[in-house]
Amino acid sequence: MLIDVQNERDDREVPLQKVGIKDLRYPIHVLDRDNRIQHTTGTVNLFVNLPHHFKGTHMSRFIEVFHQHRERLSMPHFLDMLEEIRVSLDAARAFGELSFPFFIEKRAPVSGQSSMLALDCAFEGMVSDKTCEGGCRRFYVSVAVPVQTVCPCSKAISEYGAHNQRGIVRVKLQLGPFFWIEDLVSLIEGCASSAVFSLLKRDDEKYVTEAAYDNPKFVEDLVRDVILAIPRLGSFPWYSVEAENFESIHNHSAFAYAEGGTL
Amino acid sequence: MLIDVQNERDDREVPLQKVGIKDLRYPIHVLDRDNRIQHTTGTVNLFVNLPHHFKGTHMSRFIEVFHQHRERLSMPHFLDMLEEIRVSLDAARAFGELSFPFFIEKRAPVSGQSSMLALDCAFEGMVSDKTCEGGCRRFYVSVAVPVQTVCPCSKAISEYGAHNQRGIVRVKLQLGPFFWIEDLVSLIEGCASSAVFSLLKRDDEKYVTEAAYDNPKFVEDLVRDVILAIPRLGSFPWYSVEAENFESIHNHSAFAYAEGGTL
Amino acid sequence: MLIDVQNERDDREVPLQKVGIKDLRYPIHVLDRDNRIQHTTGTVNLFVNLPHHFKGTHMSRFIEVFHQHRERLSMPHFLDMLEEIRVSLDAARAFGELSFPFFIEKRAPVSGQSSMLALDCAFEGMVSDKTCEGGCRRFYVSVAVPVQTVCPCSKAISEYGAHNQRGIVRVKLQLGPFFWIEDLVSLIEGCASSAVFSLLKRDDEKYVTEAAYDNPKFVEDLVRDVILAIPRLGSFPWYSVEAENFESIHNHSAFAYAEGGTL
Amino acid sequence: MLIDVQNERDDREVPLQKVGIKDLRYPIHVLDRDNRIQHTTGTVNLFVNLPHHFKGTHMSRFIEVFHQHRERLSMPHFLDMLEEIRVSLDAARAFGELSFPFFIEKRAPVSGQSSMLALDCAFEGMVSDKTCEGGCRRFYVSVAVPVQTVCPCSKAISEYGAHNQRGIVRVKLQLGPFFWIEDLVSLIEGCASSAVFSLLKRDDEKYVTEAAYDNPKFVEDLVRDVILAIPRLGSFPWYSVEAENFESIHNHSAFAYAEGGTL
Repeated sequence: MLIDVQNERDDREVPLQKVGIKDLRYPIHVLDRDNRIQHTTGTVNLFVNLPHHFKGTHMSRFIEVFHQHRERLSMPHFLDMLEEIRVSLDAARAFGELSFPFFIEKRAPVSGQSSMLALDCAFEGMVSDKTCEGGCRRFYVSVAVPVQTVCPCSKAISEYGAHNQRGIVRVKLQLGPFFWIEDLVSLIEGCASSAVFSLLKRDDEKYVTEAAYDNPKFVEDLVRDVILAIPRLGSFPWYSVEAENFESIHNHSAFAYAEGGTL
Repeated sequence: MLIDVQNERDDREVPLQKVGIKDLRYPIHVLDRDNRIQHTTGTVNLFVNLPHHFKGTHMSRFIEVFHQHRERLSMPHFLDMLEEIRVSLDAARAFGELSFPFFIEKRAPVSGQSSMLALDCAFEGMVSDKTCEGGCRRFYVSVAVPVQTVCPCSKAISEYGAHNQRGIVRVKLQLGPFFWIEDLVSLIEGCASSAVFSLLKRDDEKYVTEAAYDNPKFVEDLVRDVILAIPRLGSFPWYSVEAENFESIHNHSAFAYAEGGTL
Repeated sequence: MLIDVQNERDDREVPLQKVGIKDLRYPIHVLDRDNRIQHTTGTVNLFVNLPHHFKGTHMSRFIEVFHQHRERLSMPHFLDMLEEIRVSLDAARAFGELSFPFFIEKRAPVSGQSSMLALDCAFEGMVSDKTCEGGCRRFYVSVAVPVQTVCPCSKAISEYGAHNQRGIVRVKLQLGPFFWIEDLVSLIEGCASSAVFSLLKRDDEKYVTEAAYDNPKFVEDLVRDVILAIPRLGSFPWYSVEAENFESIHNHSAFAYAEGGTL
Repeated sequence: MLIDVQNERDDREVPLQKVGIKDLRYPIHVLDRDNRIQHTTGTVNLFVNLPHHFKGTHMSRFIEVFHQHRERLSMPHFLDMLEEIRVSLDAARAFGELSFPFFIEKRAPVSGQSSMLALDCAFEGMVSDKTCEGGCRRFYVSVAVPVQTVCPCSKAISEYGAHNQRGIVRVKLQLGPFFWIEDLVSLIEGCASSAVFSLLKRDDEKYVTEAAYDNPKFVEDLVRDVILAIPRLGSFPWYSVEAENFESIHNHSAFAYAEGGTL
């Protein structure tokens, strides 16, 4: 029998909020509105709290549980996986963060041609052994959606043209109601000067150029319009929206951030 | 006269917590215990809040103010720079984050040979127009210190040897009292199995190998020991400590986190 | 009919070696020894040459062809995809680079417990319209394998212990014969102080610690041993091997590189 | 006396092309046209070849030599530093790569306001013990210049507007004649739709928007124009130019590459 150093008593009296594993890369399955299941690749962080009297946690158990659940990491099951980790490690709380590219098949606006667009998504959750008001089981979904933005100031002050650029809108939602990532993406794209596409033919490029010029947006506009649109998707207790423009006239970004919610 | 689109009235009634610029890279000067001034290179984010009735902020003013202050970005002056941004943009609050490599000259433990070690540091601050208790001017310093850790479990259960690896300890402190980054780094290194060095001769390598083996530490130990040591540096209202081990027997990290403070 | 600017004549007389698309992220399928097909996520660059008299290339065609082939990107079919791009763009040469994480299920050495290990892989290819000796169709596979290395110098000069760390061995092979990525990975791991695993129980950790201590390796040793081992996998016209150690006593890497081949 | 494991005889008969250190971060000084010296922060890789009969190289010597030279890493002295490493390690060849941000003070085109722009630069060199024709001492400088590009196709096919974006032009030059990085940057910016600036007032933004719209450029145009412009800077034996557009209508890049030279 090998000794269990982690299980020894610790006398420093310092409890740890989080102990666990970080940056584990794994093949995973998530839910997909059109194909039921999407195979993708994730990076996961898994933690529990550690009471002050234990010397260490048992890192291998995080992997054992996650390995079992890797093919059903939908929003509803993610917290069940965390709960299993919490119980397995005899902890009061467990936390998890899972980030992954999510792919959506999109059709070009005029030609209708199909291509895939990658979106950086993340799940984040917390479970606790307490039965308490509004805080013991929390789950968040984040999506980062690339868009095009035309600058309203540049358009207004210039005789012709207007600087525009790729931007990214990052939305984080606390659940709340179930929703499809695909629907959140459409809602965000609808707030930008234009959506972006992996594949555009010449007819599509003309359409996107003109539509975007007709619809200029600051990062401030983007955040405000998304904040106002989110309630159409469901009634979320809390959400945040940030927009970042990779400015075409600068080598830095323009940025805006706001929070909303129904609580 | 060109029209000022940003200054127009907005009727959406969505105030923004943060609006500004992100990922601007700049040459900067910070304070250095041994050489008074250290020239380094930073990446900066600067934001203000935006009341709901303004359409946009004036992004160029952030750069104008920061450009003026780039050669005196010591801890005491960072908040003055933010206050100037706040007033210049007529905002209630201003926020800033500045990350930069900070270099320390270190001597090898036996040979005494000199070399430089790079540490990722950051300043983070907030100023407000309110006069309020304990929250209107906040300043944080973060330092990430690479160290060596020998695994106590591996040492205890193995006939010989013990897996060890590079780890990184990230400390974030709310000021609080002035302190030298160099002193915080020494304090953190003293909690690890061993410090790391850019230059070690054979005598030094023997010393470091044996000293580290004599002093095994989990990420949990590292965080607890640093939490207990920080008060020796000063009385900080709040601080956090995280340790991440780039495990030599895995392709992911072990991680621990805790917070402390005197408030 | 929209005008075709790309198709216009160019008089600058500067031919371009490569024109195309870069950093497109896509869901893909590659071959897997144990499960036939592995779903993973890739980042792809696709280029053709552009003769001096054309103003531009038609970027959308790269995506059209790649989209069709995304579910059969095995080694044998990757060059067929490039050939289709070459013909579609009426070019003399086409080039492609596809990088993706590849996952292998591994068993811990004593407990036998299963977990997945992620490896960064890449395909690289070139096709040409010429019929020429040994150069018109080229295909390369790259694999980056994380391993553990114990330092022979540290072990030899120290009374006890030895610094060790995670390292990474990157092998690039020109085909040549078909082989399974899984077999190349085993061969590389066999040259290190120890393989790494996502999941190790205490018995496994003891085994790995002692086995690695018994088998110290410099980056130089690792490269030489892999160079000598590759011919066991097949007769490759050219290959390169690099090893990088994330030194546990430094904050930089140790590195070695060599090339071999049968031509 | 500690034994010197690296110095032992190796019987595997595998010579190594490169052995050394990688990703060492250091404060450095480079030359600056306007201020004579620029303090910046670099990341350096340093290698020598290793004959087949030596077991290993002495990694600490790379750092010892580099540490001495860190404050005079101008183009002319970089190869002297490599030669000192080569001799110190008794090797036939030494190689070095040093990457660093280089900052240029720029004035906005109408308001004349000053701000700094960061450019990613690199030095790369090789020295050899052979006296041979055109190959024993080689030195390369690379500069990555952010620019704005307006799409000629989008402009030509659309009723109004034109998509545009930030792009980056990477030039690598073999020396050849001495030149100032600042002059190469101006030359590259002159080939784009517009230069980018950290600070633009409203008058400047109008100017940049209209100038860029009047001057649309594909990545192909950018590469060709830079290829044709470089000889104005000097007579370089070899150079490469690549342009990458972070397309505002896609989430991937458009890319072009060509080489030129006087040999």
